[in-house]
Amino acid sequence: MGYNLRLLISCPDKRGLISAISSFIAMHDGNILSADQYVSETGGFAGGTFFMRLEIEGEGFGLTREEFAGAFAPLARRHGMDWSVSYTDAPKRVAILVSRYDHCLIDLLWRWDAGELDAEIPLVISNHPDLAPRAEVHGIPFHHLPVSPETKAEQEAKVLDLLAENQVDLVVLARYMQVLTPKFVNAYPRAIVNIHHSFLPAFAGADPYRRAHERGVKTIGATAHYVTEELDAGPIIHQDVAHVTHRDTVEDLVRLGREVERRVLARAVRWHLEDRILIDGARTVVFE
Amino acid sequence: MGYNLRLLISCPDKRGLISAISSFIAMHDGNILSADQYVSETGGFAGGTFFMRLEIEGEGFGLTREEFAGAFAPLARRHGMDWSVSYTDAPKRVAILVSRYDHCLIDLLWRWDAGELDAEIPLVISNHPDLAPRAEVHGIPFHHLPVSPETKAEQEAKVLDLLAENQVDLVVLARYMQVLTPKFVNAYPRAIVNIHHSFLPAFAGADPYRRAHERGVKTIGATAHYVTEELDAGPIIHQDVAHVTHRDTVEDLVRLGREVERRVLARAVRWHLEDRILIDGARTVVFE
Amino acid sequence: MGYNLRLLISCPDKRGLISAISSFIAMHDGNILSADQYVSETGGFAGGTFFMRLEIEGEGFGLTREEFAGAFAPLARRHGMDWSVSYTDAPKRVAILVSRYDHCLIDLLWRWDAGELDAEIPLVISNHPDLAPRAEVHGIPFHHLPVSPETKAEQEAKVLDLLAENQVDLVVLARYMQVLTPKFVNAYPRAIVNIHHSFLPAFAGADPYRRAHERGVKTIGATAHYVTEELDAGPIIHQDVAHVTHRDTVEDLVRLGREVERRVLARAVRWHLEDRILIDGARTVVFE
Amino acid sequence: MGYNLRLLISCPDKRGLISAISSFIAMHDGNILSADQYVSETGGFAGGTFFMRLEIEGEGFGLTREEFAGAFAPLARRHGMDWSVSYTDAPKRVAILVSRYDHCLIDLLWRWDAGELDAEIPLVISNHPDLAPRAEVHGIPFHHLPVSPETKAEQEAKVLDLLAENQVDLVVLARYMQVLTPKFVNAYPRAIVNIHHSFLPAFAGADPYRRAHERGVKTIGATAHYVTEELDAGPIIHQDVAHVTHRDTVEDLVRLGREVERRVLARAVRWHLEDRILIDGARTVVFE
Repeated sequence: MGYNLRLLISCPDKRGLISAISSFIAMHDGNILSADQYVSETGGFAGGTFFMRLEIEGEGFGLTREEFAGAFAPLARRHGMDWSVSYTDAPKRVAILVSRYDHCLIDLLWRWDAGELDAEIPLVISNHPDLAPRAEVHGIPFHHLPVSPETKAEQEAKVLDLLAENQVDLVVLARYMQVLTPKFVNAYPRAIVNIHHSFLPAFAGADPYRRAHERGVKTIGATAHYVTEELDAGPIIHQDVAHVTHRDTVEDLVRLGREVERRVLARAVRWHLEDRILIDGARTVVFE
Repeated sequence: MGYNLRLLISCPDKRGLISAISSFIAMHDGNILSADQYVSETGGFAGGTFFMRLEIEGEGFGLTREEFAGAFAPLARRHGMDWSVSYTDAPKRVAILVSRYDHCLIDLLWRWDAGELDAEIPLVISNHPDLAPRAEVHGIPFHHLPVSPETKAEQEAKVLDLLAENQVDLVVLARYMQVLTPKFVNAYPRAIVNIHHSFLPAFAGADPYRRAHERGVKTIGATAHYVTEELDAGPIIHQDVAHVTHRDTVEDLVRLGREVERRVLARAVRWHLEDRILIDGARTVVFE
Repeated sequence: MGYNLRLLISCPDKRGLISAISSFIAMHDGNILSADQYVSETGGFAGGTFFMRLEIEGEGFGLTREEFAGAFAPLARRHGMDWSVSYTDAPKRVAILVSRYDHCLIDLLWRWDAGELDAEIPLVISNHPDLAPRAEVHGIPFHHLPVSPETKAEQEAKVLDLLAENQVDLVVLARYMQVLTPKFVNAYPRAIVNIHHSFLPAFAGADPYRRAHERGVKTIGATAHYVTEELDAGPIIHQDVAHVTHRDTVEDLVRLGREVERRVLARAVRWHLEDRILIDGARTVVFE
Repeated sequence: MGYNLRLLISCPDKRGLISAISSFIAMHDGNILSADQYVSETGGFAGGTFFMRLEIEGEGFGLTREEFAGAFAPLARRHGMDWSVSYTDAPKRVAILVSRYDHCLIDLLWRWDAGELDAEIPLVISNHPDLAPRAEVHGIPFHHLPVSPETKAEQEAKVLDLLAENQVDLVVLARYMQVLTPKFVNAYPRAIVNIHHSFLPAFAGADPYRRAHERGVKTIGATAHYVTEELDAGPIIHQDVAHVTHRDTVEDLVRLGREVERRVLARAVRWHLEDRILIDGARTVVFE
């Protein structure tokens, strides 16, 4: 069975980086299947920040998994690279957190079944019991961990334990209606994806469809973003919108929004699973 | 030459309104070319607010322009109607206010030339001289009225004088970079259309593209709205968006945004000219 | 429990139709909740064809279900109306026909569960056994009726029998990979909705994604239409598209297309169930 | 003043190409500003076709314009590369051909004025005199070359003469209503961009909006493509669509289509001018 390596790199920009990196790959007989590159002026380095994603065929590549880091380290050190490598035959492990709304969960699991999302999904966690059958029909264990203001810290600790036990790489908040504490957020940096049901930064916070209706907008949207300590302010991965009219009630906005939410979340999760997203300060670089 | 009447009505909802109105038209031998109707729960009346737009063929209609108001008044009074009538052979008179950005002005004038906007445009007003040739190539008088913080009141008075002299029905702010005073706004209630270069309520105020870039949004937009005393808070007429990526600089957002701005503004102006927009509190009803 | 009437009318255009119809409703104390109207130049009548959709509150309306047709008949006859009435407390009965692709079926059933589709779904029929669990999880009987070139007539007869037994009003072809015979089509005029996986008339017939890829299009689409005797040529109800790039393989087009297909089909089915669609020759009138 | 080189390459795919190319650049002290790469399975070579676009900073690059080809030739020969280089301080020379419709011409010239299109436009050619003022207001010479069935060959010869005299690199057919002969097409391979007013392959040929209206489509579109000998069958560069309803007449489709046409054409021309398009058999590779 074939597999590929995916190499993500960011570092201060300078001449010769592409040559240095691609020559390293060529020296080890690697076949580059795809290469994407971008230089940002806003990434923190005065002379620009260099971002690169490479997909390399595993077949014929001269470095084993054990050897790769050691062989790449000198190059990485010389250029001050922040880098990571993943292998397509070791798909990421994903936990989905939900509350009562089912549309994002069902859509993610259908896409997973259809082969659109290359991941393992060892568990679904919810603060409500309602969606247990939706996970279990796919053979995925469902954990009901109720939460109240008093038990919030305790419940979060249990969730973190479950994530650790299951060696989770990515946490997907599929309309999980709980604000995470900084402790939780910092345990999974750049590894928690949330779907917010508005085109951020408009209507951050609670009840965006009702507020959108009151404001009389003609477009509603959804935003997938990484979760940071500040609510609804993390780097945006994807956004899309739907047109609405004066005839659409708040309930219609909710209905039309569901369609946008599930589409936007699924695309963001897919990109994360395929290692297509890098962080550029408050922004994302997405190599589609 | 044929012409049509356009009748706009809003009033407290009750049974029999459509019958009463259409029977009044039929009684006077009117041919209804199109009829749109909507009942809003948010329009201020407890039992709902009724909105209607009728387009009636002038040919064969039994009431002259002089007679219409008198004949319609008893019906309107009985149902507490807020109403207006316009005639398609008396197109609205439009003033376009601009500063230095030319794209919205050029687009509006091209569409006007192409017959997309049924209006008279007796003048263009600007606080800068730059766009004079753009108006004059279409034979439209261009008035340069410079403004400074000290002369703002005086300049606005001159603008209002020009609008009055030219019997202007609609003021279009085609990227006019001046905030209007309440006095000005109240002189043209529901008759000033502005284009804001963001999908409101996101990025209200100054410099939206720069702020959008900093926030790392994946969608930019534009909003056409009626101007009210509160900046960028008037009823929204139309919104549209464009997708952007991490590769797009602020300058790219400006370029892509221009395309959205001119499209959104042109559509809003067209709808206003065709009497397709009614005001429902903070929202608009648009009978497309 | 409240219910509404939905009245659909088409007839030769003439003066006074809206007045005549709305006065008939008013005379019987009906409250018109929404009224849409359109005059087509292409509908077959020399002076234009008039189309109308009325939604009337059942509460307080003076005509019972038994009385309505008798009371409305004289008016209908006088104006040569083709008309129908439906009641929202008697939702339409829908049969879904599928083969092996599951996305449209799953999406329709999820929307049905979520209350987006006001219908009864007494059965799902397929020429393959694969999707039985997808129907049965919703408690809907699944009928497996295999088909081969030799058994086609026989299998169709069985399908028609099942539809008749279950008093089906609407047949939805949710990626049913069999061409229906004229006999079948004519048994359900204007009552079979198909989803075709291209923006018709482009790529009618088999294998549209492969052909779209070969042609190098930058946009793919899906089309929901009523089925007529001529393949993929029936009146179009709804279309939407997705943008694609040179990077997208045929498999990517299939994946992206699934998203468009299910969205387009769901919307068309919803409009049909809400009596929003009338037929205007080879075109549809959709009162959204 | 700074300038960049843009290097376009296609060749049979093999290991080490990116390394070989980027090392060549690095060896000559070149700073790669952007690099895009793609491997196609459909480009004619059994093992795949490799496509690459590089943008290299002129400042500090060690090869002069005179030296580049000689230095790059051995590498190109070894890998069987089809390649070209352009310099951003030598913008392409564009001829715009029009007939009577003005919207595409006006839009291109406005964008050119606004700095969106980096090109020289030495002339506009038309078979009608109407649009002369539109070119001349920008100081661009306008050539009126009328054509009739009898004079077609002669007129085309004159057009080709003008293009040659003006050293034109790109011919833009901005709604030029004449079919070009193979002789003309072959004189500018991959260098004639046409805008067709439908989403090809639907409605190739004449009068697409009328045919779209008759078919009752709910989406209209426009397609920018390179011109080949076969009418409307050249490689597609860009497509976009607009939604329409039953209310839209053929005239409305024309109006809405104009907006799509000018947007699609402008984007295709911009991509061509920025050397973002390569040809992959019947398809295009567009490095956005």
